[in-house]
Amino acid sequence: MTAPEPRALPWPTAGIAFGGDYNPEQWPREVWDEDIRLMGDAGVNFVTLGVFSWGNFEPREGEFDFGWLDEIMDRLDAAKIGVDLSTPTASPPIWLHREHPEILPVTRTGQRYSQGGRLGWCASNPIWRRYALRVVETVAARYGSHPALRMWHVSNELGGGNRKCYCDASAEHFRRWLLARYGDVQSLNDAWGTAFWGHRYADMDQVLPPRDCETAPNPGLALDFSRFASDALLEHFLAERDVLVALTPDLPVTTNFMVSTGPHVVDYARWAPYVDITANDHYAAGAGAVRAQDVAFAADRMRGFNPGAPWMLMEHAASAVEWRPRNRANEPGELIRDSLAHVARGADSSLFFQWRASTAGVEQFHSGMLPHAGTRTRIWREVCQLGGILRSINEVAGSAVEAARIAILVDDEAGWAWNAGQKPHNELPLPQLAREYHQVLWERNLLVDVVSPLTNLRRYDLLIIPGLYLASNATARAIDLFVRQGGRAVVTFLSGIVDPTNRVRAGGYPGAFRDLLGVVSEEFYPLLAGDSVALDNGWTATTWSELLSSDGAEIVARYSSGPLSGSPAVTRRKVGRGEAWYVSAWLEQNSLEQLLSAAVAGLGLQPPAQAPQDVEVVRRVGPTASYLFVLNHGVESATIKVRGVDLLGGALIDGSLTIPAGMVAVVKEL
Amino acid sequence: MTAPEPRALPWPTAGIAFGGDYNPEQWPREVWDEDIRLMGDAGVNFVTLGVFSWGNFEPREGEFDFGWLDEIMDRLDAAKIGVDLSTPTASPPIWLHREHPEILPVTRTGQRYSQGGRLGWCASNPIWRRYALRVVETVAARYGSHPALRMWHVSNELGGGNRKCYCDASAEHFRRWLLARYGDVQSLNDAWGTAFWGHRYADMDQVLPPRDCETAPNPGLALDFSRFASDALLEHFLAERDVLVALTPDLPVTTNFMVSTGPHVVDYARWAPYVDITANDHYAAGAGAVRAQDVAFAADRMRGFNPGAPWMLMEHAASAVEWRPRNRANEPGELIRDSLAHVARGADSSLFFQWRASTAGVEQFHSGMLPHAGTRTRIWREVCQLGGILRSINEVAGSAVEAARIAILVDDEAGWAWNAGQKPHNELPLPQLAREYHQVLWERNLLVDVVSPLTNLRRYDLLIIPGLYLASNATARAIDLFVRQGGRAVVTFLSGIVDPTNRVRAGGYPGAFRDLLGVVSEEFYPLLAGDSVALDNGWTATTWSELLSSDGAEIVARYSSGPLSGSPAVTRRKVGRGEAWYVSAWLEQNSLEQLLSAAVAGLGLQPPAQAPQDVEVVRRVGPTASYLFVLNHGVESATIKVRGVDLLGGALIDGSLTIPAGMVAVVKEL
Amino acid sequence: MTAPEPRALPWPTAGIAFGGDYNPEQWPREVWDEDIRLMGDAGVNFVTLGVFSWGNFEPREGEFDFGWLDEIMDRLDAAKIGVDLSTPTASPPIWLHREHPEILPVTRTGQRYSQGGRLGWCASNPIWRRYALRVVETVAARYGSHPALRMWHVSNELGGGNRKCYCDASAEHFRRWLLARYGDVQSLNDAWGTAFWGHRYADMDQVLPPRDCETAPNPGLALDFSRFASDALLEHFLAERDVLVALTPDLPVTTNFMVSTGPHVVDYARWAPYVDITANDHYAAGAGAVRAQDVAFAADRMRGFNPGAPWMLMEHAASAVEWRPRNRANEPGELIRDSLAHVARGADSSLFFQWRASTAGVEQFHSGMLPHAGTRTRIWREVCQLGGILRSINEVAGSAVEAARIAILVDDEAGWAWNAGQKPHNELPLPQLAREYHQVLWERNLLVDVVSPLTNLRRYDLLIIPGLYLASNATARAIDLFVRQGGRAVVTFLSGIVDPTNRVRAGGYPGAFRDLLGVVSEEFYPLLAGDSVALDNGWTATTWSELLSSDGAEIVARYSSGPLSGSPAVTRRKVGRGEAWYVSAWLEQNSLEQLLSAAVAGLGLQPPAQAPQDVEVVRRVGPTASYLFVLNHGVESATIKVRGVDLLGGALIDGSLTIPAGMVAVVKEL
Repeated sequence: MTAPEPRALPWPTAGIAFGGDYNPEQWPREVWDEDIRLMGDAGVNFVTLGVFSWGNFEPREGEFDFGWLDEIMDRLDAAKIGVDLSTPTASPPIWLHREHPEILPVTRTGQRYSQGGRLGWCASNPIWRRYALRVVETVAARYGSHPALRMWHVSNELGGGNRKCYCDASAEHFRRWLLARYGDVQSLNDAWGTAFWGHRYADMDQVLPPRDCETAPNPGLALDFSRFASDALLEHFLAERDVLVALTPDLPVTTNFMVSTGPHVVDYARWAPYVDITANDHYAAGAGAVRAQDVAFAADRMRGFNPGAPWMLMEHAASAVEWRPRNRANEPGELIRDSLAHVARGADSSLFFQWRASTAGVEQFHSGMLPHAGTRTRIWREVCQLGGILRSINEVAGSAVEAARIAILVDDEAGWAWNAGQKPHNELPLPQLAREYHQVLWERNLLVDVVSPLTNLRRYDLLIIPGLYLASNATARAIDLFVRQGGRAVVTFLSGIVDPTNRVRAGGYPGAFRDLLGVVSEEFYPLLAGDSVALDNGWTATTWSELLSSDGAEIVARYSSGPLSGSPAVTRRKVGRGEAWYVSAWLEQNSLEQLLSAAVAGLGLQPPAQAPQDVEVVRRVGPTASYLFVLNHGVESATIKVRGVDLLGGALIDGSLTIPAGMVAVVKEL
Repeated sequence: MTAPEPRALPWPTAGIAFGGDYNPEQWPREVWDEDIRLMGDAGVNFVTLGVFSWGNFEPREGEFDFGWLDEIMDRLDAAKIGVDLSTPTASPPIWLHREHPEILPVTRTGQRYSQGGRLGWCASNPIWRRYALRVVETVAARYGSHPALRMWHVSNELGGGNRKCYCDASAEHFRRWLLARYGDVQSLNDAWGTAFWGHRYADMDQVLPPRDCETAPNPGLALDFSRFASDALLEHFLAERDVLVALTPDLPVTTNFMVSTGPHVVDYARWAPYVDITANDHYAAGAGAVRAQDVAFAADRMRGFNPGAPWMLMEHAASAVEWRPRNRANEPGELIRDSLAHVARGADSSLFFQWRASTAGVEQFHSGMLPHAGTRTRIWREVCQLGGILRSINEVAGSAVEAARIAILVDDEAGWAWNAGQKPHNELPLPQLAREYHQVLWERNLLVDVVSPLTNLRRYDLLIIPGLYLASNATARAIDLFVRQGGRAVVTFLSGIVDPTNRVRAGGYPGAFRDLLGVVSEEFYPLLAGDSVALDNGWTATTWSELLSSDGAEIVARYSSGPLSGSPAVTRRKVGRGEAWYVSAWLEQNSLEQLLSAAVAGLGLQPPAQAPQDVEVVRRVGPTASYLFVLNHGVESATIKVRGVDLLGGALIDGSLTIPAGMVAVVKEL
Repeated sequence: MTAPEPRALPWPTAGIAFGGDYNPEQWPREVWDEDIRLMGDAGVNFVTLGVFSWGNFEPREGEFDFGWLDEIMDRLDAAKIGVDLSTPTASPPIWLHREHPEILPVTRTGQRYSQGGRLGWCASNPIWRRYALRVVETVAARYGSHPALRMWHVSNELGGGNRKCYCDASAEHFRRWLLARYGDVQSLNDAWGTAFWGHRYADMDQVLPPRDCETAPNPGLALDFSRFASDALLEHFLAERDVLVALTPDLPVTTNFMVSTGPHVVDYARWAPYVDITANDHYAAGAGAVRAQDVAFAADRMRGFNPGAPWMLMEHAASAVEWRPRNRANEPGELIRDSLAHVARGADSSLFFQWRASTAGVEQFHSGMLPHAGTRTRIWREVCQLGGILRSINEVAGSAVEAARIAILVDDEAGWAWNAGQKPHNELPLPQLAREYHQVLWERNLLVDVVSPLTNLRRYDLLIIPGLYLASNATARAIDLFVRQGGRAVVTFLSGIVDPTNRVRAGGYPGAFRDLLGVVSEEFYPLLAGDSVALDNGWTATTWSELLSSDGAEIVARYSSGPLSGSPAVTRRKVGRGEAWYVSAWLEQNSLEQLLSAAVAGLGLQPPAQAPQDVEVVRRVGPTASYLFVLNHGVESATIKVRGVDLLGGALIDGSLTIPAGMVAVVKEL
């Protein structure tokens, strides 16, 4: 599929969107009155309706009860709250599962799930497709011209519950997908190397999904099945989207991604062109700085899909979730800092799951904007405070985040390839590596776009390639060109190891980048748990090392302990007008800081403002003004140099602004 | 079902019952001779026969071979050993499983178990029910009037192997159960909040058991399925019981519970009224004081079903079991201390699984009264010694344990509710909390009844409510009344959170007790692993904290570290003639000791005797005398003040008795 | 089955075999040219072909394409490289699985595996058997007289992927096997003690494999199913072998074992007589000395099948594998030390999996003789160096390893019995015990044969019996005789506990050896995790202890802490001309060293040469000369006293040879 041209559709709210998922069907009508009133108090201007409503408006096949939805749409319209209306396919009604249990997903061990979950459907099942499109058409026909409607929200967190389905319908669909990809079975045999173990297919119809076969699956098959699972979900999305676009051509259509460290079930970078507004659900993980960086990384990755364009934070949590082993509550101020961190990095919204905390159902302990305890609560006070802040900075909407000059390259396909089959180190958390490089730069307030190989790299000065396990020839060429034209690249171990068929690039690692880097790595030396290795410049590494030799690269550091003692560990090579670094080991954080100091040296990269530790600063730039976001994550007040207007307080800042611990500021710069 | 009136049936032995499970069918007849002789040597007066004998007396369908059982019954009668005859339904014969594999339980992932285990049947299966009642009738008809027979033992550890069955027969039975509970599907939809995720049922026949649906199940559904599973087993029990009562109306009928910390598969508190004698199987866990308290807690819970009435210890182990990861052997004296601890707390028996250790079968390494190595063993010597001790204290039988003035409220339904679905803290071992409160009181020899919400609370001065997650309105009212009438209640976090449908009580935690306690908890702050929080009175807590405010309660302690610093942590409110405490955090043991010291202050609670550390003292009170049980769990001899007759040695104790380390004494007080 | 007479067939290569698995079908023909050339460079003289080739030469049922295999056979012949041709049954072709999925193995929970793995067949399935023998016949007919062919290699690592199958065909086969073993169902009932839980079988056809029944299986059933699974695989092997022997009576037939610490899926000791050359695949585990001993143990066990005869190392790895959590690479020199360690202990080969590292397929990260990076690599240099070394010592081929005077008794059946069902200590790694005793002797360079109960014990002076959980009466008699005739036996706890039906031998532990040892152990006292116990001679133990009394044995040491304080812990009894020791606890390594010092005292056992720590020395003895292998595993150079010719360097050694750290020497002694 060729990605379509983006459609020029307006942002669904006037300025920053504020609100969240709203599920009035869980509550009696008297609660609705309070809801609308409190939404007004908080400044809510946008809600998502209908996500899980199918079984509520079609309780039996063909029997519709839209009265309640009509009423709530009208009430919201009257209250001037825009509606993001969801197609209800995230949750098929019970009657459909009872009548057609064959639409439920099947695991790799052959177990078919039962009713009662979420996304209980196989994207390849034609019966499901028929029911799904029918209900989408019904909803679109009924509400397409409702004055409250601002945007369509297709299903919900696609791939969240129906990650991969191994049923016979999926097998059939997978084979069609393979035929389109490979043309014939011989090409598929070559791609997957099925001569290994003599698993050559004589006909395409002999292929099955990688169901449990007692050993690990063929890496090529496993990777392609991940691609297929993503594409099958995309195909479903497009089918719903087409129905909506046909009926309401002027309304934007989105679906909520779950972009985080990755790899994701769905290849969001390849999916993003198909939504009118990219939207994300983000539930911050960890505590303290780890958590704040988790927010920043996800936001930088969302922005990376289309640097310069605003995106939508579709869901986050007012406080705790319920699905982690221990669900930490937000500390005071954290709700606001989280929201502003997303806005600073390009989100023109702060939306929550959900408006009012449920008392029943699986998510009864998921926090809401309005908690179980009601309005006399910290959460509610902060929600209202946030509403006020967003109104104060409303002019920020539509501005672009200041252009990043650094990019980190990540790729869901590469992550799938790493996860497909047995590896030299089966406990190595490769996706975490991008987080560690990002963390060092985030701590320095050096803005980074987290981008995919589909991205035009020209705009960057520094490109970090952390464990990009799979690299196509095109990607390798693009990076080569980036360097030759003056860019600086830092490539780590476990990059470029396999080609798009998940076949090892022979001749020495890191295959795709070997020539560019001027090194040959001949053998992996994974470190055992608890082991570390020293470099001769004082750096240390754990987890991974390699037997490396230089083939034209300058040696920055050598191993100085262990069996690799004396061999190169980190190299640098000038190529064209740029230079390419290779890092063969998993550096510990202190060493990584020194590496990145060396790697950025001379590039003239500066943070938007000098800030003390634990203070995050990001700039957004509009057509007429720029805005400095300052988030004090620390426990002491912090002072930064800036001139402008404090949009939250209204004061004129004449050179120096002090932000109390835990607080935020947005300064319109003069 | 309304619980029946208790039947006034005699205790099956003259005095304390001593013996255990006897499985002669595993041994040749020459061993039987030795068995009977050695039972005489040890003083055995009661054995349980026939538990797993079905396949042995009905080797093919309809072919009976009762000769061996006739013979052993006669021999036991001749030896004046009473028989507790079991219906053999704990183990269907192989031929029944081969002919009707559909009676075997099905897991939540859809796997049907195979033959060869225990309790391999679904309580909802009508074919199984027919076969089960037929064999019960056959056994009852044959042995109902045998002179050795003293009691019926229905099946064995019901719920032990057939915890929950998810088969279609169970689904059908579950729907009938739901119809009886809710009347119609709309009430069920309201109860479970099925509007969430749009999982509304149009007809009752759309409901399925909570089979694996990839996400957590609806909390209301999951809780009701736990109730149903318990009731289905109870229904089976009652069906067997009715057959027995019809044929032998004068014989007591019991079944062996597995009461421990809970929650149990079966709601024993609701089941207890249906057995003529409550009986327990208890396999002490842990070592040292942990283990001794484990015994005490289970015994206090058994007694709590019917304070004042004797109960039966139906099984415990002479030494190690075989089903734990590492199976610790009893230390010298422990077998006797365990037995006496049970008797002290109300058991009029000490029965073992089993008489003679098996050499084959799954339990070949479960210890027996007569070990593999025979009679020249520590175990056998202690068994014989125990027999002697029980004869010496035989007059204790029928006396009541001194009335406890403290109760700890626990509830299997509440435990199920906590386990049903996702929670703010999914690693929090809520049932353990009751054990920690009990431990502090046990160490002080302050007797506690561990009771359910069905219990009349009037008899107590202090009521501890440790994490009673679910509380009905009736329970909340009863506790309110208890306090107003002068009782003192200590309620902890995670009490009263949900109503009987497992729906959160909105308006602030702890919903059901908020008004009584005069507090509002607005948000949970689970502590991460390894974290702790300080209180301003020096106490510390781990695992759990809350953002609490007082609404009329006096503040006993505030948080003094972490994000809740300054907020109330422990409160106390005078209500009517009593007072109600709230403890919002999981206190560490030292802090808990101080809390309970404060909570009991002024109530005049005293142990039966002053005793050094590690010495357990309990009093039983008969119509003409009282008996002080003293168990020295320590490693040094201990002296306590008491006057009376040492029933074990026969000596007159004139004020002071010294008990060697590891030994026990029973003093008839003067 | 009675084991056949060994066939007198020549070793397939002239001298030591060097090479590995060769899978040319994974590569284009231009690579073949390089392969043959590089094999010549390295000195390869033997390759295994065809292991996974079925799907490659029979891409559709009945359509054969043998051209590529013809060609490679011819090329190898031309290059004077012998071929070990494999029957291709380790990997059924995809078309066979698609047509007959019923041949795939079924797990104990009833899940049938899918295509795509290895050994995807049930050994009891008659359809599979038919297809398998047909293809064997086809291959044998085509290549039986090819001049390159030296040996047949039946299938691959039988039992590796198809460990146990629980399908209906296996059930049927199992019942036939049981009928042959027991004659009638009553004998089976007696053997398994099915009176327990009333699981008596009325007919043999009621027996099922030990499919998941929620509890542990009957120990007798579980043990017999392990025996059956081994025998079913052996039966399959014999069926293939018979086809081959009929067509090519003069070619040796083998299959590659996976002998390690055990127990194995297949009882190799009982299988070994059926192969013409015993062959092993060994992938060393751990690092440092642990790893070196792992090699030595496996090699000593291989030699133990037929002490004095050479065996074949069929597979090991040039460096890392890919299937462990973290796959350590070989350190420099390790590849050579490993190979020489195997040769020193009796292997007349060093063969690798595989020649050229795959770039695709499941094992794409399994190291090869020729790595991904090609010939400019450490691995390739060491492979070539090894080829040179093996040529230099070629005269060693055919010589015998110097006769060991110590044996350690291990038994797969005993291991299966220990693993079947619940035990006093369910976390105790009993097979590891043999490794710990072996380690102490290995560190002293005292050669040990690791043997099974089928071995003639006469040749040994010291016999160690480490946790031989199951012992038949015949084994007990043989050991008794061994001692009475002057041998010394060291028997540990958990030996002789059960008989061949997995029934506990009553009367006191260790049942089978109680009389010989003059002790009675009345009760097991497993130690809890982290606990240890002291002995009065300063030794310490963890994991296991017992309540022991002497019945005629001298007490070597008593417990001096814990509940067993004062009881015997280690005993010794003179019996006939020998003596028998009993060790009732799991001694820590220091204590074990002292125990074994005492146990070998007076036996006059000496290492082949005095060597410093970390230097392994082994002697092979030929008809005209002896050869001293010296492996320096340490980090410093080591000097040993020896006279002879250094076969690697050619120098005359006049009394003293210094071996650099990590290096090896083979000295032809004068």
